[in-house]
Amino acid sequence: MTIRDLQNTLGQFAHARDRLPFHTPKSLAMALTGETGEVLESFRWLTPEQFNALTSQPHGTRALRHDPADVFAYLLRLADVTGIDPGETLAEKIELNRHRYPVDLAYGSAENTKLGE
Amino acid sequence: MTIRDLQNTLGQFAHARDRLPFHTPKSLAMALTGETGEVLESFRWLTPEQFNALTSQPHGTRALRHDPADVFAYLLRLADVTGIDPGETLAEKIELNRHRYPVDLAYGSAENTKLGE
Amino acid sequence: MTIRDLQNTLGQFAHARDRLPFHTPKSLAMALTGETGEVLESFRWLTPEQFNALTSQPHGTRALRHDPADVFAYLLRLADVTGIDPGETLAEKIELNRHRYPVDLAYGSAENTKLGE
Amino acid sequence: MTIRDLQNTLGQFAHARDRLPFHTPKSLAMALTGETGEVLESFRWLTPEQFNALTSQPHGTRALRHDPADVFAYLLRLADVTGIDPGETLAEKIELNRHRYPVDLAYGSAENTKLGE
Repeated sequence: MTIRDLQNTLGQFAHARDRLPFHTPKSLAMALTGETGEVLESFRWLTPEQFNALTSQPHGTRALRHDPADVFAYLLRLADVTGIDPGETLAEKIELNRHRYPVDLAYGSAENTKLGE
Repeated sequence: MTIRDLQNTLGQFAHARDRLPFHTPKSLAMALTGETGEVLESFRWLTPEQFNALTSQPHGTRALRHDPADVFAYLLRLADVTGIDPGETLAEKIELNRHRYPVDLAYGSAENTKLGE
Repeated sequence: MTIRDLQNTLGQFAHARDRLPFHTPKSLAMALTGETGEVLESFRWLTPEQFNALTSQPHGTRALRHDPADVFAYLLRLADVTGIDPGETLAEKIELNRHRYPVDLAYGSAENTKLGE
Repeated sequence: MTIRDLQNTLGQFAHARDRLPFHTPKSLAMALTGETGEVLESFRWLTPEQFNALTSQPHGTRALRHDPADVFAYLLRLADVTGIDPGETLAEKIELNRHRYPVDLAYGSAENTKLGE
């Protein structure tokens, strides 16, 4: 499915359950961060070895697949209710970062190459 | 661009700047949540009226376009390094939620229709 | 108990369970934000009326008492491992904000009176 | 200053700037998590060596002192507006966790000794 298909499916899912009135930008931003918090809680104490072991644990499905999927769902809903195109805005931001963090200056420098802020 | 195209572009962006060694799942989860925190900080004090006014403010571009784009970027990087397909896992999660929150039971109930957890 | 007493109790709790090696600043920052994410998840869909009703629900104890207590716990642990005094640094930050956001300029202005950033 | 003194000072700071109407539980939870997001953004890419170097950098003051102080400020405001005593609720939660995660079972086990969830 394309990003747009996913957004339409999520919008219909929410509409069918009368959830649209709850999907204000503020509440969706809270829901989005709540889900990223679940990802943090799954990862916080893991050593790299334990992290790799996650994939073979039932708990791993939630940590690696379902929680990030929930983050994606709320990000797509937030974009939908605020009228932005997620793929287009990301492509736009990447172009901006190409100029902000030119390869020759940014190479190997954490400060100059962070994707955001 | 497709989700995969965006992931490839972001991977090349990071690789060209020697950032791949920094992109561990833990650090990407921290970066992802750091960006959702920026969205929260832009929205936290706004009344619905002030929120609508955002779109016409220079600050609005960051709040509505750039910060969510950064969230998307780190989510796609996290999916990439953990080897999951974001669109496929989201479609999978939506199917799961269809069964978890059937329309007849879920209609209008915040508890039964949350997209995640 | 004083802030210092609480920090000592939490340190002993972690030590007794051999948790100190896990309490790196990065992991504690992740745990801290994971807990704030739980607070967000409890509040995100609530109307003010529903929020007030929380206090009379079993779920309310977790949302209003236990989750914020967990945030406090990890904040105190983070301060402890990074060697800062939470009360002293907060008093210091408040003084800084008094000068940054003088009452006459800040009165009623969301932008000028935010406590942080 | 005691926790109560800090809460009173923060309440007066907000009142003097006409901020109390903005300090709803939802907005304070968003502000709280926004600040923890700033801590994550300061830490996310750091190696343990780089983290230790923070203390000697100007940037370190914000990362190690001011951002955590802002987290503390919003946590104390949230507790104040929801009518809970942060020290008392934390002491209560620690007691709960003593029974939940007895030393003999919890020793060295990440799963059994997490402070929250």
